[in-house]
Amino acid sequence: MTLSSLRLKKNADRRLKAGHLWLYSNEIDTDATPLKGLEAGAQVVVEAANGKAMGVAYVNPNSLICARLVSRDPKQGLDRSLLVHRLNQALALRQRLFAAPYYRLVHGEGDLLPGLVIDRFGDTLVVQLNTAGMQAALPELLDALDKVLSPTTVVLRNDTSGRRQEGLERVVEVAKGEVSDPVLLEENGVRFAAPVLDGQKTGWFYDHRANRAWLNQFVAGKRVLDLFSYVGGWGVQAAAHGASEVLCVDASAPALERVAENAALNGLQEQVSVGEGDAFEALAALKAEGEQFDVVILDPPAFIKKRKDIPNGERAYAKLNREAMRLLGRDGLLLSASCSMHLAPERLVDVVRGAVRHQDRHGQVLFQGHQGPDHPVHPAIPETSYLKALGVRVFRD
Amino acid sequence: MTLSSLRLKKNADRRLKAGHLWLYSNEIDTDATPLKGLEAGAQVVVEAANGKAMGVAYVNPNSLICARLVSRDPKQGLDRSLLVHRLNQALALRQRLFAAPYYRLVHGEGDLLPGLVIDRFGDTLVVQLNTAGMQAALPELLDALDKVLSPTTVVLRNDTSGRRQEGLERVVEVAKGEVSDPVLLEENGVRFAAPVLDGQKTGWFYDHRANRAWLNQFVAGKRVLDLFSYVGGWGVQAAAHGASEVLCVDASAPALERVAENAALNGLQEQVSVGEGDAFEALAALKAEGEQFDVVILDPPAFIKKRKDIPNGERAYAKLNREAMRLLGRDGLLLSASCSMHLAPERLVDVVRGAVRHQDRHGQVLFQGHQGPDHPVHPAIPETSYLKALGVRVFRD
Repeated sequence: MTLSSLRLKKNADRRLKAGHLWLYSNEIDTDATPLKGLEAGAQVVVEAANGKAMGVAYVNPNSLICARLVSRDPKQGLDRSLLVHRLNQALALRQRLFAAPYYRLVHGEGDLLPGLVIDRFGDTLVVQLNTAGMQAALPELLDALDKVLSPTTVVLRNDTSGRRQEGLERVVEVAKGEVSDPVLLEENGVRFAAPVLDGQKTGWFYDHRANRAWLNQFVAGKRVLDLFSYVGGWGVQAAAHGASEVLCVDASAPALERVAENAALNGLQEQVSVGEGDAFEALAALKAEGEQFDVVILDPPAFIKKRKDIPNGERAYAKLNREAMRLLGRDGLLLSASCSMHLAPERLVDVVRGAVRHQDRHGQVLFQGHQGPDHPVHPAIPETSYLKALGVRVFRD
Repeated sequence: MTLSSLRLKKNADRRLKAGHLWLYSNEIDTDATPLKGLEAGAQVVVEAANGKAMGVAYVNPNSLICARLVSRDPKQGLDRSLLVHRLNQALALRQRLFAAPYYRLVHGEGDLLPGLVIDRFGDTLVVQLNTAGMQAALPELLDALDKVLSPTTVVLRNDTSGRRQEGLERVVEVAKGEVSDPVLLEENGVRFAAPVLDGQKTGWFYDHRANRAWLNQFVAGKRVLDLFSYVGGWGVQAAAHGASEVLCVDASAPALERVAENAALNGLQEQVSVGEGDAFEALAALKAEGEQFDVVILDPPAFIKKRKDIPNGERAYAKLNREAMRLLGRDGLLLSASCSMHLAPERLVDVVRGAVRHQDRHGQVLFQGHQGPDHPVHPAIPETSYLKALGVRVFRD
């Protein structure tokens, strides 16, 4: 199969040379190689302005990121063979990292597989195809997964917002086997059931595993508030690590049902209770009732989805941290997270600083956590590094 | 005792209000309250331009940072009572963090004790007084330490370069008891002896404890190179966690003697060998000999000490990472650290990116580590956050 070419403008090859995998539509020499007419998801050979082939990419003429490199070998496109190779590389890493088969198996660009996310729950794989190019490779991908892992079940959680921009329909499908939802997993020695068909994202957030492990060291005997608890990843783990009392708050009743189930899975019904409601309203109500906690966990959804949301988003993080800190006792621990890629790590420190000062307390940042190692950061693609978690001691003088 | 005042210029109180503890000499209203004439180390009440008292600071008219806040209570100076209070706060944190008495007990501004560093090795404390103000409080400090901890031995490692700027002599003294140098400590379950009288800094670097713990998970059966090994903190720990072979390289023969002793302390003489020499020369020699390693650890001294060193320093980090990466096998692990406060975390990622691309390999940043929790970061003082450690998988396609 001969691929057509995509010619870059002069000097537009710098980012690729530096290791990045993305091309923007304004970097293409569209006089030489029009983007129009290329089918979304088609593969092309990327050429520098001087004609030198730089590798193979798949394109989407309708997207601002109009092409993503899949290989630096101009003869190697995204086919079953490359997918098997990359999946084996990804699997080898996870097998070195973890004893049990519960992890993010593929983290998109971080695993050199742009647009592909796969979370593994034992024999069940939950897949997200976030680009037209990866969608086009679905048959080869399913084949490659069979060869590398022989999963019994493959769920396609193709309901991500990114698919709309790529012109893809948003739909959840079972591509192989039968799903017994929720599926079981284990994290930091604690058992959970995750709703892979209709939960958030793939059903579970493996990215906070290391941050939860850090916090688990310091919760024994403590009273813990887990805000935006979802199915209890933080809260139930805290209870399993000795927290005397955990309150999980979420706006979703189905998520809170799962919290109760996950607590029961670990025999922790007595320690874990739930509260349904908006986080800010819950904080106000708890404050009014005079409640205090030793540990407060803030793991909100992304308040900043696009660059233009930064000012409003930072204000929302500030308000949340300020309000939550009021519920901490004299010498408490705040776990403050953000999954907004557009919030720089030092800005989250500043959010905490502002909240601490607002209440005339002192703060010590004990821990600066990031996404776990099954969510590898591509060193040339800052966008692949998105998760922050600060462990902060908050005390009065 | 009535303290004299130090009046700030208009709006110069912003940084203090935001939580910072430092004042710069150009922020002082020297017409109202001359800095000249104040004794280095004297305490003053800091006042905003409108006369409102903001707290107590100690001064050094000869330093760019002309004052550091010790308390936000204008009636509470740096005395025995405050020192006892702050030491108790610091100790309470460490006792929650660690089971054994081996840690940084006081991390300067991060523990609200500007200019004071104390590392604890059981009953031996190693103290650094880095400012004239903290030096002036030495008698009260020794008193307070007796009350809070009753150490048998207190060593003053007052040979830091910062003391010169403060107009203080550089000298190592034993303030209490007798030192049996080296002193013993334990980190991540491994035993070490640290040369507290004449080793680097306080004799040991507790700041990398969590980063070493991360790496320890992945060294079993591996061949490990520990560059800038000092007394073997990384290398001997790697051997203790199952590395089949560890080579520690350092330019200091006495440090390497300690490596051998530390290996022997843990029965790891067979696994750990040493090489004396300049790091870059050692890398070249190892490359020439065709040596390969599964894991390479780079924990160099600060290549960037001042802002003006940034360009040269970044080049040095780049060269080091590039040369070291050549010794990694097909699918290796690089632990690349920097203790330069002036090297931003994302710049170290970029150093790694450049090295990976230079050799046409792929890199995955699996871990972004920082200083351990006994080195708390003050959220308003970026200068208190200095340590970076990246865990990077480096592989060929």
